[in-house]
Amino acid sequence: MPKWNTVAIVGVGLIGGSIGLALRRRDLAHEIVGIGRTASTLAVARKRGLVTRTTTDLAAGVRDAELIVVCTPVDCVADHVLASAAACPDDALITDAASTKVDIVGRVTQGMQTRGSGSRDPGDGPTFIGGHPLAGSHRQGPREATAELFEKRTVILTPSRKTPVGALERLTRFWKSLGATVHQMTPQRHDRVLATTSHLPHVVASALSAATKKPELAFAAGGWSDSTRIAAGDPDLWTQILRSNAANVLDSLAHFEQQIAAFRAALESDDPRPLKQFLAKAKQTRDALGS
Amino acid sequence: MPKWNTVAIVGVGLIGGSIGLALRRRDLAHEIVGIGRTASTLAVARKRGLVTRTTTDLAAGVRDAELIVVCTPVDCVADHVLASAAACPDDALITDAASTKVDIVGRVTQGMQTRGSGSRDPGDGPTFIGGHPLAGSHRQGPREATAELFEKRTVILTPSRKTPVGALERLTRFWKSLGATVHQMTPQRHDRVLATTSHLPHVVASALSAATKKPELAFAAGGWSDSTRIAAGDPDLWTQILRSNAANVLDSLAHFEQQIAAFRAALESDDPRPLKQFLAKAKQTRDALGS
Repeated sequence: MPKWNTVAIVGVGLIGGSIGLALRRRDLAHEIVGIGRTASTLAVARKRGLVTRTTTDLAAGVRDAELIVVCTPVDCVADHVLASAAACPDDALITDAASTKVDIVGRVTQGMQTRGSGSRDPGDGPTFIGGHPLAGSHRQGPREATAELFEKRTVILTPSRKTPVGALERLTRFWKSLGATVHQMTPQRHDRVLATTSHLPHVVASALSAATKKPELAFAAGGWSDSTRIAAGDPDLWTQILRSNAANVLDSLAHFEQQIAAFRAALESDDPRPLKQFLAKAKQTRDALGS
Repeated sequence: MPKWNTVAIVGVGLIGGSIGLALRRRDLAHEIVGIGRTASTLAVARKRGLVTRTTTDLAAGVRDAELIVVCTPVDCVADHVLASAAACPDDALITDAASTKVDIVGRVTQGMQTRGSGSRDPGDGPTFIGGHPLAGSHRQGPREATAELFEKRTVILTPSRKTPVGALERLTRFWKSLGATVHQMTPQRHDRVLATTSHLPHVVASALSAATKKPELAFAAGGWSDSTRIAAGDPDLWTQILRSNAANVLDSLAHFEQQIAAFRAALESDDPRPLKQFLAKAKQTRDALGS
């Protein structure tokens, strides 16, 4: 794909930093601007070569950007997208990397319509397409960034019916150029699916961890360790994610609780077969994913 | 520690095979007899050098053993311990590696008392001490055996008040010689603790897996994968484990469900603070374990 002149990354943590590093290693952009609030984080990003320059001034950072990727915490994304849209070139493409989509896409769409009636005509100006790379870790920050974070991982894009085809193709090529596979779905379907595949596991891992008393931890083996790993994630970030997808998370949780109830009935039965069937069904689903 | 003359391993799967391989690599036994039902499994054990010889005849296999380690599925362990006790030398030490202890220790104690009134005087004859290495995997069988499986892992022994001190010391040295750390507790405490640290995670991982529909699996990222990994375990083995510790598992599950209820209330609240507190507490416990 043609090399980008300038890519701006708002929020240079694990995801943003890894995007920068992947672009540099693959020589896909002339300039990569890292935008952040904290001078020390930006210093790490420069020192590790994740970006070519940094600024704390969002408007200045996006001024020449062809592509802007907003990688800030869920609650900040819509504001950062709108602030970028107000300051970037008219033909820029803006996307994000947040774990929920309905709230963000809704707020951005509304915000852009409002602003469109100002200095720009509606329909003119930069294009926003919601995105979510299914990559990451319970570890955070630019020190954890790797150029391979998106290789063989899935990225979900959530275009609307008004999204220009050309912009969608450019964004798809962008993620493919970092090694990812790209899927499209509506923001609504994204949030329903991710409630089950990502947000519910976080809740369950956290409840499992919270249900374990300190003296018992000495006897936690590999199973406990694997099953609770994501509970080490940042409580602030996950509070934002879960609240921004609360209805779907509660639905997924209800479905999970039905499984727990089925397990309880099976274990309380004198007949071992329902329990074995429950475990066999779970194994079948797990085995379908691979290790 | 002095080299064992003959160690007999009943059940040469992941655990039994790894014990054999660890003994051989560390040159801790002159002879290691692998005892199993299935000729093909025993052939793998011989070919991989996990044991020095094999037999399908338990009585013949334990005849000269100083130490017998029963590594068969939970439901078979008590019978295999008693069959070993009836055929092995009077001064032999017998232990097991099963994931639950109350049932097994109870059945073995009762069985040995009954048999003690026969050809042997009560109190004479081999000593049994329950054991449980907190090592293993959702993978099974002698092909998965490794000599390092017990290094830096915890082994729990469940001696009774009648256990001879010398036998307990020998068994403790045995597990330490394979690189493990040894803890002692009652069978009752073992089963209560493991219900929380091992059996509940298996239930929760299975419920999480079973709650996920096939089309959603394509969007399962690292969190889902980690959190459900143990659900790939053998349904037969886990049916036995969970049923043999049912009361404690149901208690642990009730405690887990209290955490889920606390989460639900927190997410339904307008105030983000209870949710953040819930996640922070879970993170604190998880962080106490390390990665």
